[in-house]
Amino acid sequence: MRKIILLLSVLLSQIAMGQQQNSPDGNVMLSFSLKADGTPTYKVSYKNKPVINESSLGFKLKKSEPLANGFRLIGDQKSTFKENWKPVWGEEAEILNHYNELLVSLKQDKTNRLMNIRFRVYNDGVGFRYEFPSQKELTYFVVEEELSQFAMTGDHTAWWIPGDYDTQEYDYNESKLSEIRGLMKQSMTDNVSQFVFSPTGVQTSLMMKTNDGLYINLHEAALVDYSLMNLNLDDKTFVFQSHLTPDAKGDKGYLMAPCHSPWRTIMVSDDARKILASRLILNLNDPCALEDTSWIKPVKYIGVWWEMITGKSSWSYTNDLPTIDLNTVDYSKTKPNGTHGANNANVRKYIDYAAKHGFDQVLVEGWNVGWEDWFGNKKDYVFDFVTPYPDFDLKALNDYAHSKGVKLMMHHETSGSTRNYERHMKAAYELMNKYGYNSVKSGYVGDILPVGEHHYSQATINHYLYAIKEAAKHKIMVNAHEAVRPTGLCRTYPNLIGNESARGTEYEAFGGNKPFHTTILPFTRLQGGPMDYTPGIFETEIKYVNPNNNSQVRSTLAKQLGLYVTMYSPLQMAADLPENYDKYADAFQFIKDVPVDWQKSVYLEAEPGRYITIARKDKHSNDWYVGNTSYEGGHTSLLVLDFLDKDKKYEATIYTDAKDANWQNNPKAYTISKQKVNAKTKLKLTAASGGGYAISIKEIK
Amino acid sequence: MRKIILLLSVLLSQIAMGQQQNSPDGNVMLSFSLKADGTPTYKVSYKNKPVINESSLGFKLKKSEPLANGFRLIGDQKSTFKENWKPVWGEEAEILNHYNELLVSLKQDKTNRLMNIRFRVYNDGVGFRYEFPSQKELTYFVVEEELSQFAMTGDHTAWWIPGDYDTQEYDYNESKLSEIRGLMKQSMTDNVSQFVFSPTGVQTSLMMKTNDGLYINLHEAALVDYSLMNLNLDDKTFVFQSHLTPDAKGDKGYLMAPCHSPWRTIMVSDDARKILASRLILNLNDPCALEDTSWIKPVKYIGVWWEMITGKSSWSYTNDLPTIDLNTVDYSKTKPNGTHGANNANVRKYIDYAAKHGFDQVLVEGWNVGWEDWFGNKKDYVFDFVTPYPDFDLKALNDYAHSKGVKLMMHHETSGSTRNYERHMKAAYELMNKYGYNSVKSGYVGDILPVGEHHYSQATINHYLYAIKEAAKHKIMVNAHEAVRPTGLCRTYPNLIGNESARGTEYEAFGGNKPFHTTILPFTRLQGGPMDYTPGIFETEIKYVNPNNNSQVRSTLAKQLGLYVTMYSPLQMAADLPENYDKYADAFQFIKDVPVDWQKSVYLEAEPGRYITIARKDKHSNDWYVGNTSYEGGHTSLLVLDFLDKDKKYEATIYTDAKDANWQNNPKAYTISKQKVNAKTKLKLTAASGGGYAISIKEIK
Repeated sequence: MRKIILLLSVLLSQIAMGQQQNSPDGNVMLSFSLKADGTPTYKVSYKNKPVINESSLGFKLKKSEPLANGFRLIGDQKSTFKENWKPVWGEEAEILNHYNELLVSLKQDKTNRLMNIRFRVYNDGVGFRYEFPSQKELTYFVVEEELSQFAMTGDHTAWWIPGDYDTQEYDYNESKLSEIRGLMKQSMTDNVSQFVFSPTGVQTSLMMKTNDGLYINLHEAALVDYSLMNLNLDDKTFVFQSHLTPDAKGDKGYLMAPCHSPWRTIMVSDDARKILASRLILNLNDPCALEDTSWIKPVKYIGVWWEMITGKSSWSYTNDLPTIDLNTVDYSKTKPNGTHGANNANVRKYIDYAAKHGFDQVLVEGWNVGWEDWFGNKKDYVFDFVTPYPDFDLKALNDYAHSKGVKLMMHHETSGSTRNYERHMKAAYELMNKYGYNSVKSGYVGDILPVGEHHYSQATINHYLYAIKEAAKHKIMVNAHEAVRPTGLCRTYPNLIGNESARGTEYEAFGGNKPFHTTILPFTRLQGGPMDYTPGIFETEIKYVNPNNNSQVRSTLAKQLGLYVTMYSPLQMAADLPENYDKYADAFQFIKDVPVDWQKSVYLEAEPGRYITIARKDKHSNDWYVGNTSYEGGHTSLLVLDFLDKDKKYEATIYTDAKDANWQNNPKAYTISKQKVNAKTKLKLTAASGGGYAISIKEIK
Repeated sequence: MRKIILLLSVLLSQIAMGQQQNSPDGNVMLSFSLKADGTPTYKVSYKNKPVINESSLGFKLKKSEPLANGFRLIGDQKSTFKENWKPVWGEEAEILNHYNELLVSLKQDKTNRLMNIRFRVYNDGVGFRYEFPSQKELTYFVVEEELSQFAMTGDHTAWWIPGDYDTQEYDYNESKLSEIRGLMKQSMTDNVSQFVFSPTGVQTSLMMKTNDGLYINLHEAALVDYSLMNLNLDDKTFVFQSHLTPDAKGDKGYLMAPCHSPWRTIMVSDDARKILASRLILNLNDPCALEDTSWIKPVKYIGVWWEMITGKSSWSYTNDLPTIDLNTVDYSKTKPNGTHGANNANVRKYIDYAAKHGFDQVLVEGWNVGWEDWFGNKKDYVFDFVTPYPDFDLKALNDYAHSKGVKLMMHHETSGSTRNYERHMKAAYELMNKYGYNSVKSGYVGDILPVGEHHYSQATINHYLYAIKEAAKHKIMVNAHEAVRPTGLCRTYPNLIGNESARGTEYEAFGGNKPFHTTILPFTRLQGGPMDYTPGIFETEIKYVNPNNNSQVRSTLAKQLGLYVTMYSPLQMAADLPENYDKYADAFQFIKDVPVDWQKSVYLEAEPGRYITIARKDKHSNDWYVGNTSYEGGHTSLLVLDFLDKDKKYEATIYTDAKDANWQNNPKAYTISKQKVNAKTKLKLTAASGGGYAISIKEIK
């Protein structure tokens, strides 16, 4: 009798629960079920603790019945997948993709329309997406809103930035979910293109922590031909709902079956380090689409850039003309303003410096005509991407760089004028091929053209990928700034070696980032792919570059070194001026040493908003590098170097904050010490307020 | 004393009148003046009769003071221009451009902004445009509305179609201005993309006639990087005001000084024939921008087209798939629908027919993949413009055509997806070059992408010109359908050999055009440039092509011949099926004979909405061709052939309606007669109801 009752209760529970799937390790459990009215719902738990309460799924469509209820389950399918794959570049040389899948097939009887939902359950979380099979009853349809819910189980702590259709360049807030509304207004700091849509709207990747110590991250993967998802919070129930980015007419997606949505991702762990170690986003993306990837090389670079950001020099060549018409302008008839940074002499100086110190490339911004009025005018024909200023000798400078084993890095600022960029793209890439550029930093500053489109609307997202694919045809690597935040597409298109899509180091010259900024970014922005954060500012008081700029980098010098490890990117800039590096040549050595591609990464310590300590093994040697970034409260690490090979000996060089250092009053106080270490070594290191440290651990052969 | 009074009154009159300029013959007078509040105004008279009453000029700007009043005259300048220029193709081999100019320079003291207005006064009318010099106080600005008025002097008769942001494919109305409002609703016939903005909005070119016999035409010239102007009527005062086409955000133009508006044109005469003979629109355009024009050749063509328009065959290849994804579709795995028109056998039949009858080209629509779901879905990647259907052998068919001295005409339907077209344009033009195509018919059916843009908004107008310029780089001639109506740009870019931008012959298979349609088009649509009207339908009852189509061409067969003369175009189609031409081989002879490029044109008779009779001299011989089109009331012409060379003899072949012909019940009754003629010959010819006639007059050598 007891057995029967047990069986019955299992049965009833299954009926009530609907379909289930567990992670390979059994810790993550996903349940799918239909409500009585046929609304699809799902739940997620971790080690039997609820992570996502019952949350409904579906779509509101334009001029059509919603795909939100009235569904009947017509099939389900479970499967398991396990493989190791090798990224072209990354935090580790091999990645395990291991999940259990549940595919539910739904039919809306009233309309005869079919919609499937595919769940993939990993040890570190869940991904799901909507799939629309080819069918006569659903061909072309327009999304009015996606109705994916993420029901939180309480008033979690969140590290969030305002939801926006155009920018992610905000400072993070740490607050309870219930406090978002009250903090929104002050969080909406000015940007040249921005559109905040709700007092409780936030962006993904969104990092949260529950009162009982669960770390939860909401994001998306493989955002292709679809608009970006923000999250809108109901701050009474703590339910997030998907909020897509609209186009010029307020529509949120033009879809054609067969098709599918991007993956919606829920990462969860009771250990914050596992959130950083997760490869869930990459794994949910398609494998590499490029046959030949031999031309894709991680890049360490310097550039003619920080001097413009700080206001020491200018992108533009002249101050003579109120407007520039590229069809008619004759720069030879204008008076140079004398501050143009991208001039032959200056660029040669940078090339010399890169060659001397072993950098791969020199970025040069402001090399091409049009910078006098490039900004904020919704100007259509703003740049042609091929014509240099009179004082920039395209051929001679590339020849000179190549003679020294250095490449120039191309710069394509589009000013948001996407049509104009596409019109000139082929010629621009061909010019790069002709002169031997193999990487481009592109930019999308200001409102997007076509008028009414947003940085994160479907058509613009389609543009970014077009640029990446066309670049790949020309064997060009892309580092796109102000583009949509990444969602792991670098797995499929590994020539996408960088993005900005967050508040980068440039803001340190525009008033500063919060000191805890870089303790959050790896949990959020970096989940989707690398960021060209441009660390390495040694002269943290900008007045040493430009006496008129009173900004201060909110970091110690030692922390700037740590960022080369904690902020993973295959593209790393040493952003400060050469003369500033000369002043601190001993510290500069770490930047020269640190690799940009890794065999393995070990996440030693992590707490969002507090500290991150990561150790990484060079992809091409047995050397290790450790980095730490800490918040205003500082952090003391007790490191055990057990990640080192047990049978090898190493020499460690430790770059850390001096005892009296702090970001605000004494940022440049650092110490450098050397010591022999092995797998048994324990190190106690203290990061100052807003500080950090870096260690190079080189094998003694 | 009398002298002094006279002088004083002249002086006073000049103060009151402001600036003036007259046409070279003195008939047209233009007056410019500023109102007391500094509002710019102008007036136009013809032979001392007012044509345009005092009308104000200016702009409403977005987030900026209007450029509408508060102006002070800071300079004026008068000049005269006279030159003869030779179009690459046209109604005549040489065109006189003769005008007197008035340039007024204005300053808005409150804002220190400068605006000039340039007037050109011709014997047949006036053109004016706004010019914005380079200035610090006005750099980038956004037009909320252009405030150009055209104040009519009374309740004129107008031949008008509804103002619209997306289409001109409407049947014309003939009504008093005061009757427009009452007729608007019934005039808004369905189109797959349309946006009527006002119950009294009308399009240009707008043709009018005053009660005392003045013919007035309002239009624009050289529409470049600006949105299209419709006219909105105040039907109490009979004042038209410019109404520009908005973009996705409702803005009407992004301008950057220095720049200028298109020309606003006012043509006027007491003789309707002079409106047809006017070259004012062409003259206001810039001279030819192409260095080499030797590759531009007028074209007479047949095509695989009417059979699809009538529903006999299809553009698409299969009925198997609900949607087509060009990235993945495999047509070899689909079942052909059996109705695909652009198949090898059928195209060869057309090539043979073109070769046999001396046509230059064969248009083939539906040759490329994607036609299954091309239409009305705002589909982005709708065509690739390079991949043929499995049953269209691109190389073999071109080789076959060329072996017979015939070219194929390319077809690029964009479905309004302008970004997609631009992305594939270069490859598409290169494909044309590779296979020997030298002309393309392009199409923009359906709503424009990017979302929210209109067919006539600034960005889309910019696209059309981009396509024309890129085509010129590949020595390709363009015939763009559903694009913006032309404004004389073919002078500057003579590879623009045709446009649609009006209700063409295709509508005769969709229910019909009003019988007087072609008596209006030369006064309106053709003012800006040639139309690919596709005349020559002999089987006027469509059921002979497709038994399921009950439409009837609202024209006699003889009138179809007359249209080859009255509807000037360097690109003329013989649109009917080969088998229908074989049935009426004697009439078909006129289509085979008639040239598409002219030495000279003589406008023998003209009355809008009633009849047009034109004689044209072949550019390459001494032969003349006469055509007539008439309205439902028919028309009897008394022609004196005094345009012929006095010392030459000719044989005329007269193709005219039979006595009992009429468009409705007996359209195919025609007679063909031959007679010797000379410059003294008089001919009495009668066009039936909805009829017309055609005469070839060949020199007897």
